[in-house]
Amino acid sequence: MTLHPFDEAVALTPTADGGFQGKTAPAYANMVGPFGGVTAATLLRAVESHPERLGDPLSLTVNFAGPVADGDFTISARPVRTNRTTQHWVIELTQGEAVTTTATAVFGIRRDTWGDGEAVMPVVPAPDEVAVSGFPDFIAWARNYELRFIEGALPEKEAEHPSSTTTLWVRDAPARPLDFASLTSLSDIFYPRVFLRRGRYMAAGTVSLTVYFHADAAELAAHGTDHLLGSARTARFSRGYFDQSGTLWTPTGTLLATTHQIVYFKD
Amino acid sequence: MTLHPFDEAVALTPTADGGFQGKTAPAYANMVGPFGGVTAATLLRAVESHPERLGDPLSLTVNFAGPVADGDFTISARPVRTNRTTQHWVIELTQGEAVTTTATAVFGIRRDTWGDGEAVMPVVPAPDEVAVSGFPDFIAWARNYELRFIEGALPEKEAEHPSSTTTLWVRDAPARPLDFASLTSLSDIFYPRVFLRRGRYMAAGTVSLTVYFHADAAELAAHGTDHLLGSARTARFSRGYFDQSGTLWTPTGTLLATTHQIVYFKD
Repeated sequence: MTLHPFDEAVALTPTADGGFQGKTAPAYANMVGPFGGVTAATLLRAVESHPERLGDPLSLTVNFAGPVADGDFTISARPVRTNRTTQHWVIELTQGEAVTTTATAVFGIRRDTWGDGEAVMPVVPAPDEVAVSGFPDFIAWARNYELRFIEGALPEKEAEHPSSTTTLWVRDAPARPLDFASLTSLSDIFYPRVFLRRGRYMAAGTVSLTVYFHADAAELAAHGTDHLLGSARTARFSRGYFDQSGTLWTPTGTLLATTHQIVYFKD
Repeated sequence: MTLHPFDEAVALTPTADGGFQGKTAPAYANMVGPFGGVTAATLLRAVESHPERLGDPLSLTVNFAGPVADGDFTISARPVRTNRTTQHWVIELTQGEAVTTTATAVFGIRRDTWGDGEAVMPVVPAPDEVAVSGFPDFIAWARNYELRFIEGALPEKEAEHPSSTTTLWVRDAPARPLDFASLTSLSDIFYPRVFLRRGRYMAAGTVSLTVYFHADAAELAAHGTDHLLGSARTARFSRGYFDQSGTLWTPTGTLLATTHQIVYFKD
């Protein structure tokens, strides 16, 4: 049986000291090192694979401290506190002596309560009404996603754009049933907003990424291989850094995750 | 000279092993333990006080793993990676053997670049046109803030509310010049949005809080003791948890910080 490329990318082997060993996947390479979404997903997968794990992900914050080199890496995931319904994790990805990535995660057990999806999904055309487009060929990881941009596709000519908003339909290519790891990776699908505003590429990279998981495992299972609607924008660009906040929805308007990041850029 | 109560609350003493010792401040007590904003500010202050610190805060994520008991606590702040312009920190607050709070922070040196405040401040009346109101007396910490609610004040009678949005003018009381620590604390000024939607109090607490600092030290110094406009809302309430996202602005519409949190509730 052949693994889906995403499952191959986030695959981990337990080590004797309670950690995990992994390997960067060429299929998910970015311009420098692996696509940050897959690194984040791999850190989440380490916790999911840990024998002491309680429940499902509630939040994940990943700090991209330095470049991940192509090749092997080690992940340590430490449950620093386990409560009755929540569990707090501290995670590190290392290569040799270098810490390339730090993270914290909260997992927990959900209970039935009152609920409401207060935010409303943007009104958009259906996936089959939006053309599939892509990223330039030299960005390997994007070839693993089916991308249908409704607004804010990658700029094709050097022209400033008044809005940082990108809205798109997206799913794994080839299709793969949604789970917490792939949802984590999809949270980083929004390329640096500064490219869109300035109408050109420049040095830019995520410094810190946070994902809040609103969906439980049953909602992800029900979603299956369907498209997700993603939308993201920046609040402020200032002195080498900017934020971007995004939402990921089912086609019927259920908010699966919200995601935030702070990004470095050099113009 | 008398310290401002906030400076007293975030005061730390270096310990022989490179950590810090602090003490909870009764003035900033919440219903259980200290106000989360002050805990977050104290963790930031630990990094600010560290001899190896590089630059100013870019982002902070604080995970509230368990209650902080009244009394002494210890903070360890470890610079896991220092790059040319950014530095990554892993932070823990402990009481005895118990880890009550974990955090990661990114500090850095800002450079002059293109910039833009794309998000626009809500149109609101001036601070002196909005009445000062407060929280119930049993919430000690709120007495240290001058609160002028424009919309979404704490519910006074049991009535559901269609929107989770709160918008308010806020500053330290007594007035205190804004700095990164007090801005961090102000990022947690928005009481749990579920109280507003449901029109009543219930068990609720922040699980994880992230702050992105858009302002540099010069912008904070220029702000001084002026009011900040804060606005926050929830995207989705689901099965015991919800997110809330907020913005903090100068009166002239400069976005100083964006903040996000995921909150536990029990109805």
